[in-house]
Amino acid sequence: MNAPLQGLRIVEISAFVAAPLAAMTLAQLGAEVIRIDPVGGNIDINRWPLAPNGNSIYWASLNKAKKSVTLALDTPEGQALARSIICDPAPNGGIVLTNLPPRGWMSYAQLAEHRPDLIMMRLTGNHDGSAAVDYTVNCASGFPIATGDSPAPVNHVLPAWDVGAGLYLALGILAAERVRRLEGRGQEITLALSDVMLATVGNLGYIGDVMINGTSREPIGNHLYGAFGRDFATADGRRVMLAAISNRQWRAIGKATGLSEKLAMIGALMEVDLDSEGGLFQARDAICAVLAPWFERRNLEQVRASLDGSGVLWGVYQDFRQLVEEDARCSLANPIFGEIEQEGIGRLLAPRGPLSFSASATPPVCQAPVIGKDTEHTLRQILKLTDEEIGQLIANKVIEETMTKV
Amino acid sequence: MNAPLQGLRIVEISAFVAAPLAAMTLAQLGAEVIRIDPVGGNIDINRWPLAPNGNSIYWASLNKAKKSVTLALDTPEGQALARSIICDPAPNGGIVLTNLPPRGWMSYAQLAEHRPDLIMMRLTGNHDGSAAVDYTVNCASGFPIATGDSPAPVNHVLPAWDVGAGLYLALGILAAERVRRLEGRGQEITLALSDVMLATVGNLGYIGDVMINGTSREPIGNHLYGAFGRDFATADGRRVMLAAISNRQWRAIGKATGLSEKLAMIGALMEVDLDSEGGLFQARDAICAVLAPWFERRNLEQVRASLDGSGVLWGVYQDFRQLVEEDARCSLANPIFGEIEQEGIGRLLAPRGPLSFSASATPPVCQAPVIGKDTEHTLRQILKLTDEEIGQLIANKVIEETMTKV
Repeated sequence: MNAPLQGLRIVEISAFVAAPLAAMTLAQLGAEVIRIDPVGGNIDINRWPLAPNGNSIYWASLNKAKKSVTLALDTPEGQALARSIICDPAPNGGIVLTNLPPRGWMSYAQLAEHRPDLIMMRLTGNHDGSAAVDYTVNCASGFPIATGDSPAPVNHVLPAWDVGAGLYLALGILAAERVRRLEGRGQEITLALSDVMLATVGNLGYIGDVMINGTSREPIGNHLYGAFGRDFATADGRRVMLAAISNRQWRAIGKATGLSEKLAMIGALMEVDLDSEGGLFQARDAICAVLAPWFERRNLEQVRASLDGSGVLWGVYQDFRQLVEEDARCSLANPIFGEIEQEGIGRLLAPRGPLSFSASATPPVCQAPVIGKDTEHTLRQILKLTDEEIGQLIANKVIEETMTKV
Repeated sequence: MNAPLQGLRIVEISAFVAAPLAAMTLAQLGAEVIRIDPVGGNIDINRWPLAPNGNSIYWASLNKAKKSVTLALDTPEGQALARSIICDPAPNGGIVLTNLPPRGWMSYAQLAEHRPDLIMMRLTGNHDGSAAVDYTVNCASGFPIATGDSPAPVNHVLPAWDVGAGLYLALGILAAERVRRLEGRGQEITLALSDVMLATVGNLGYIGDVMINGTSREPIGNHLYGAFGRDFATADGRRVMLAAISNRQWRAIGKATGLSEKLAMIGALMEVDLDSEGGLFQARDAICAVLAPWFERRNLEQVRASLDGSGVLWGVYQDFRQLVEEDARCSLANPIFGEIEQEGIGRLLAPRGPLSFSASATPPVCQAPVIGKDTEHTLRQILKLTDEEIGQLIANKVIEETMTKV
């Protein structure tokens, strides 16, 4: 069996989170991904977190399963090599993903002169081409103001807009590749990071809430909006999240805690219908007041014993260390993980892509390349360069000699 | 020109955020999406935010551009109709997306008896099939503990795991459809919501940070991790986010504020290299101490006048109302938006999908269906049912008569 995208070749010239994630996602589905960077690496090569020797754990984590080619992209000769790799006539090639601006040799028009059916997927900041990054998009989204329990904005830590954009980029490439396969034509696809935010705010109903109700969602701490849910402290200083988004889950909470009768009294007490999501939300403080002592009197293991298998929707708060050290889902017991020896960093538990295919091969978890590692091999294999031509490129500082020795 | 996924038919039987978002995303790329729900709607039909008349703005926002079919899915007759729609032999049909468990008529094996090349994309909670939702996945992820400026967990408001899962689901369908087109075989693809979280935590380097450094990222408030960035208050009570993830952006801050010389002194003061991202992060409190008064002495318009066009990376914090009312990107001036009359709700600014194709048609922004609206038409068109057969289904309460009149 082949992997789902076996044979497809994607060339990536990008940095940071969104575009590298997009290309890695396609690599994890079996595509050949060649990331081209300036000699020495792009602007994200030293991004935190770092290993003690200074190598970027971040970079290694977002570039798994790719090939790394480094070229002097600020020279006509380096640009010509990159163009030749992008526009190589292999039928499953001719796809480039970038967050560079559409100028000069990286414009669609100039590249398409060398391959008319080129597919170019381009990430921009805003739809007018101006700059934006996750941090500056997020502050505008409304979410930081609605996060936490005070009007002060709280930034997210997960770069959610970058992650969303990365997945839209991967989707856009597959959609355009389908068009090319069926109808023969390539095209440029663009995605603005801030449009990912705007579309998402709209898709979740918050634009409509403002336009129809004139309301802007307020911060409600860790309460679940529109149904029941909140965090609770346990006797041993842990915290758990409890939620009910269906009547079945709500009844399960009463049954598992033995508090059904008390919880049922809250309907009359607060004059709400506890069979409706909205009623649960309106009565949230009374519900939490009844439930909190139950959790405060039990340690995490007792809570687990009572709630696991009871139909109650709940989970434990963990920091990253607890996730790695205590959660069985974050271990080799979960088939999405493999163990890799990441050159320059060390032994890592690393995820493959999260999609599982029943009738296509799953590429194994792969390490990230050392920067520039595949330069010479790629120039020989795709562009058929000779020893002499490679030597000339090194002499001209278009490629780095050290890179060719790895 | 056709839309990218013109002709593809996806049947969705699901609820909540992730799977509905996946199907809507494919509809916004031109696919025909038929969402099948129980008569009266699925468990998400009344989810908040609601319009004053009780209709769900949330539901309408996540189901745009779909057809809605309602059937008595708890009866063999309703299940048989759903199966016939899913397994209809149209070459571009035979794709179903669901978050139902793989049991009975909704198992891949039983459905594939009626269409051997069926593609079934299934969302689960955990990889072992147990339940999980965004709230219970998020608490385990490590991010709530690292959010805000205290060790207390802060839940995200954006259901980021659901959004990510929705986009992976859409991607998985296109990857599997490519395999079917090239190699003729269908398959079941599964995605666990918690695996989306685990893969993302790993992809961003946080698993590696624990394994290599033994450290778990701590909460750092609104500071940008590993480079420079934080929020600042203006004289008129607004807040802005300022960031520098490149040396160019860092130098632009000094130039635009006239504080270059003072900022340069911080390198010696704090004994760090301000030309490195890590140095900026280590000196963040001193940098913010120098910059904060500059913002406190200016109102938002003055800040805007100084920073716009200066190469500084910045943005304004907005609540959802300010986003809708004050941000030009969230208006018809941005081509991703259209204005729709949403039946049962009202006039809405609504986004299309955020991907823009240069050589494929962009489907216009479409309203969501009224629940059940397309039931009779779909049964006639795809299953070729007659008036008599439709009447019998109504008599047997397999479909609802009122729904057929819309």
